[in-house]
Amino acid sequence: MERAIGCEMEAVDQMIRHAVWSAGASGIVVGVSGGIDSAVAAAFAARAVGPERVVGVCLPSAVTVSEDIEDAQALCRSIGIECRELSIEPVLQAYRGYPGLTDTPYLAGNLMARTRMAILYAIANREGRLVCGTSNRTEYMLGYCTKHGDSAADIQPILHLYKTEIFAVGRAMGIVQRILEKPPSAGLWAGQTDEGELGLTYPEIDAALQSLERSGWKAGNEVEERVLRRVRASEHKRSSPPHL
Amino acid sequence: MERAIGCEMEAVDQMIRHAVWSAGASGIVVGVSGGIDSAVAAAFAARAVGPERVVGVCLPSAVTVSEDIEDAQALCRSIGIECRELSIEPVLQAYRGYPGLTDTPYLAGNLMARTRMAILYAIANREGRLVCGTSNRTEYMLGYCTKHGDSAADIQPILHLYKTEIFAVGRAMGIVQRILEKPPSAGLWAGQTDEGELGLTYPEIDAALQSLERSGWKAGNEVEERVLRRVRASEHKRSSPPHL
Repeated sequence: MERAIGCEMEAVDQMIRHAVWSAGASGIVVGVSGGIDSAVAAAFAARAVGPERVVGVCLPSAVTVSEDIEDAQALCRSIGIECRELSIEPVLQAYRGYPGLTDTPYLAGNLMARTRMAILYAIANREGRLVCGTSNRTEYMLGYCTKHGDSAADIQPILHLYKTEIFAVGRAMGIVQRILEKPPSAGLWAGQTDEGELGLTYPEIDAALQSLERSGWKAGNEVEERVLRRVRASEHKRSSPPHL
Repeated sequence: MERAIGCEMEAVDQMIRHAVWSAGASGIVVGVSGGIDSAVAAAFAARAVGPERVVGVCLPSAVTVSEDIEDAQALCRSIGIECRELSIEPVLQAYRGYPGLTDTPYLAGNLMARTRMAILYAIANREGRLVCGTSNRTEYMLGYCTKHGDSAADIQPILHLYKTEIFAVGRAMGIVQRILEKPPSAGLWAGQTDEGELGLTYPEIDAALQSLERSGWKAGNEVEERVLRRVRASEHKRSSPPHL
């Protein structure tokens, strides 16, 4: 961990408080999956505006394992925020009624992410809250996210942190042990792990991203080539849509 | 109409073709509502990559009037693109099952826009298409749109055109007469008109926006004050979410 965590955490607090104040919002809503990213993001939100102004929403589907729901609840208890649970299955069931829209895990996963976004924003709209994003720098640079889905938010408190740094910050924040220890997963199907799907470990990916940044995005080995290809292919997820 | 429409139309064609080529996409999908914005956007898409590579999708809800569906179909026929129709009612019905998420026309309208986005992106994902946006400059500057809903797209061919200019471009493109003549409406409830909801006419709004741009965003009269307030309040819809 090379960065000065303490200073950065205060800067994140300030950023969140300014965003809430300038929007005239009453508080924050954050989707909590039982994973490390949403745990650290929720903990930042609670630190910044007080736990009483933050709501965690757990949005399981039929493929969500019960351990993840329990971990999301334990996280909310430990940081003192309200925890709500809403299954997204009724909406997914409706999407399954359209021919072809959920035929592959990839299509279904994107619809899950967009359904979660729509519900979080509906809660935010109704209660005057901001939606807190849970994207880290690694997935942001790789484009390992659903556009207008899990990457859609009003504030992004952990977007500057590589996945390997998220764990260090999570430990420093005292995030519950089970969440710190489980293998990262987008939870889109049973047994999915990010590292299995990406074909590289997070330490490998983060080392490659940091080396690419230092070298001006020149790949120096095969892992960096693979990471660079993903960065290039996902450029559209990080920029405004082309227009005149 | 002050701008040189012809030159700009070619620049839009080039922008669309470049976006499709650089994404390696097979074509374009566009939501067609029966209104002028989606008509002009769809016509641009068809001009740029050929009508055989564009699909228009009409996504009515229970509050959609049948004239709008007929106009969307007539538009697709007239520009030679495939037209599909998918009701969003099954998904909205699922959202109505969650306590409080659809209690006001505003909440329900946002869910409609986000459901349409999710379906358009699912079609795009499945068929390797880009999602064509239908946002004009007036609604973009006012924030008169749903974040991650109707404003979410991969290309934005009409984002530089004020609403009053959209009509001029639509006439120049030969858009079907009924679409050119109907009062603009977001179609979120029966009888809704944009101008009724905004409390100002589009010529008033566009004149105010153009004057504000010339004056460096200093309001010179009451209409400009009102427009400026909307521009300020919707800043978050035009910028990246705050992060470190």
